[in-house]
Amino acid sequence: MIKKYYLLSPGPTPIPPDVLAVASEPIIHHRTPEFSEIFMQVSEGLKYVFGTKEDVFILTSSGSGAMEAAVVNTLSPGDKVITINGGKFGERWGNICQAYGVEVKEVVLEWGDDFTPDQLAAELRANAGVKAVFSTLSETSSGAVYDIKGYGEVVSKTDAVLVVDGISGLGATPCPMDEWSVDVLVAGSQKSFMIPPGLAYIAFSPKAWKLVESAKLPKFYFDARKAKKNLEKQTTPWTPAVSLIIQQKKALDIIRNLGMEKLLEHHRVLGEATRAGVKALGLELLAKNPGNILTAVKVPAGIDGSKLVKTMQAKYQAYIAGAQDPNKGKFFRIAHLGYMGAFDIITALSALEMTLDDLHFAFEKGSSIRGAEKILKENWQ
Amino acid sequence: MIKKYYLLSPGPTPIPPDVLAVASEPIIHHRTPEFSEIFMQVSEGLKYVFGTKEDVFILTSSGSGAMEAAVVNTLSPGDKVITINGGKFGERWGNICQAYGVEVKEVVLEWGDDFTPDQLAAELRANAGVKAVFSTLSETSSGAVYDIKGYGEVVSKTDAVLVVDGISGLGATPCPMDEWSVDVLVAGSQKSFMIPPGLAYIAFSPKAWKLVESAKLPKFYFDARKAKKNLEKQTTPWTPAVSLIIQQKKALDIIRNLGMEKLLEHHRVLGEATRAGVKALGLELLAKNPGNILTAVKVPAGIDGSKLVKTMQAKYQAYIAGAQDPNKGKFFRIAHLGYMGAFDIITALSALEMTLDDLHFAFEKGSSIRGAEKILKENWQ
Repeated sequence: MIKKYYLLSPGPTPIPPDVLAVASEPIIHHRTPEFSEIFMQVSEGLKYVFGTKEDVFILTSSGSGAMEAAVVNTLSPGDKVITINGGKFGERWGNICQAYGVEVKEVVLEWGDDFTPDQLAAELRANAGVKAVFSTLSETSSGAVYDIKGYGEVVSKTDAVLVVDGISGLGATPCPMDEWSVDVLVAGSQKSFMIPPGLAYIAFSPKAWKLVESAKLPKFYFDARKAKKNLEKQTTPWTPAVSLIIQQKKALDIIRNLGMEKLLEHHRVLGEATRAGVKALGLELLAKNPGNILTAVKVPAGIDGSKLVKTMQAKYQAYIAGAQDPNKGKFFRIAHLGYMGAFDIITALSALEMTLDDLHFAFEKGSSIRGAEKILKENWQ
Repeated sequence: MIKKYYLLSPGPTPIPPDVLAVASEPIIHHRTPEFSEIFMQVSEGLKYVFGTKEDVFILTSSGSGAMEAAVVNTLSPGDKVITINGGKFGERWGNICQAYGVEVKEVVLEWGDDFTPDQLAAELRANAGVKAVFSTLSETSSGAVYDIKGYGEVVSKTDAVLVVDGISGLGATPCPMDEWSVDVLVAGSQKSFMIPPGLAYIAFSPKAWKLVESAKLPKFYFDARKAKKNLEKQTTPWTPAVSLIIQQKKALDIIRNLGMEKLLEHHRVLGEATRAGVKALGLELLAKNPGNILTAVKVPAGIDGSKLVKTMQAKYQAYIAGAQDPNKGKFFRIAHLGYMGAFDIITALSALEMTLDDLHFAFEKGSSIRGAEKILKENWQ
């Protein structure tokens, strides 16, 4: 049979056809007024998605590069920070800080568990002199979202800055940077920004800029002061990924035409439909506070989780994600992030039904579609 | 919400990504060895799909152009022919013949009804001196397929030639030209050939070539003798649609890698899954002998057929086809033709479920998916 490839992972995500087409245009030179115009349009569009009046810098790197940029531009050796580790990506903040000799007080959560602003306030009271709190908007490894608005209220009353990994979450779940008192916000191109991997975005609040000016951690490629100086000249310090920036211009046009409110609403509907679908099959969600970026679903008793993911991918070409170490095989993740449509959710659920049937799991066939269709219909616009 | 466009019509059909990508390559000149090489590869590949040792000519035209080529290259003014009219496209054979002063004995069928080889034999006995029988492999307007193998057995015993419109059917349902004694076979690029509209294909048996040599109907652009002379020089009489031929080369590579047997089996599975899905909703098929190209479904009592199609298209972006005049509003057509996958069927059925619910039709939600999934799973490979 002819099989089509369905990308249902939380990054990379599918690319709109118009944005794909732009990648086949000839490459233009990056030190020209033509490119500068596009570059500045992208910079402005990113401010819109970030919800900030501050500069948003475009890095040619993955999201992890922008996470490193957040660390090295705000801290000095020996600084003390709190990191919230609710999964692989919260853990990464600690790994980066430790690589640079920063003293880390790590809050370790069970994957999928919540961490409230009150709990954060208590951590801050117990750890005097903390320079920064590193948190995650959407923990891609578990599907949980955290109360960044609440964290902002807590952290803004202290001397610390709030650094947020918005890589998978920004654009799919609310996080207006200025309004929520986020001091450093990091994002990645291959998520709700609807372009391929290769670019990352970062912005600093005025409070964070004060730290940038005094931060002493070693840096070169990710130096925000260099990026700022170059942005004033409508360019980048290093050769940027030209074609990706031109694609981002096109994708931001789509996002701005739609509007942030509708983009977030879109993700809400797809997230809700996915959750309704999997619950109709009798399956349980991993996250106590599941986000609209991806849905992590517990592998039911008696089913081999690795086999489930392998069947979805290899047999049905439905590229959902498995669980990462140390939870491999315990759950699986269906993304509904970026350029996804309602029928991508239907496809994911139908492939899941056929897979569960292959693995001899008992359920009412068609029920996940019925559950998802109900939500989709109620919200269709 | 972000809505994706689903092309579920019996032409144009979706294009494989690799084939789309080829269209953005620079145009090469058509009177060069480089182009001739590609052109001859396409000609060879077409022979494979046609199931013929004869030349297959590439026309830069729609399928209707190739139908005209079939008429003007085989007949002379005043010739008598039988046309089998089971819908819009069977009717077209008659229209073309009449435009050229050919005497037409038209067999008019109810849309969706069958016409047996025995019935054809009786028609031939009743109409002495018939030069050609014009029939349709898959009648796109009704979803019916006809017994071309049986027609071939009947017509080959007479002096008449069998001319078959294989435009929507060839590649999706069997029609090996030489084996089934088809004398003229016509096809179109935007069907199971998996490229955009703009090219049509035609081949003549040795028996048909004898008619070509004596046919006196006026012709210029569609003159098969000119095409033959040019094909010997590895080129075309007129400027061909270069980019489409290059796309056809790529798509034929895909088809040959898959193999005709698997391509036909693929269409069989999608057709069967679609029929199982719509039957599970309590709906009826139009065709007595439904093909694996498209499924025409009767609009149930109390439902506005035009509204159904409009809702599918405008609200759910599922571009199925309505019924053509004079049956407008009476049925709708879901294609499963060309580069379609199993989840395109699931998408079509889910959009149909949501549409039927919008129109207050009573059915068990999710049941069409259950019906289709069963067939897909049984045949998945």
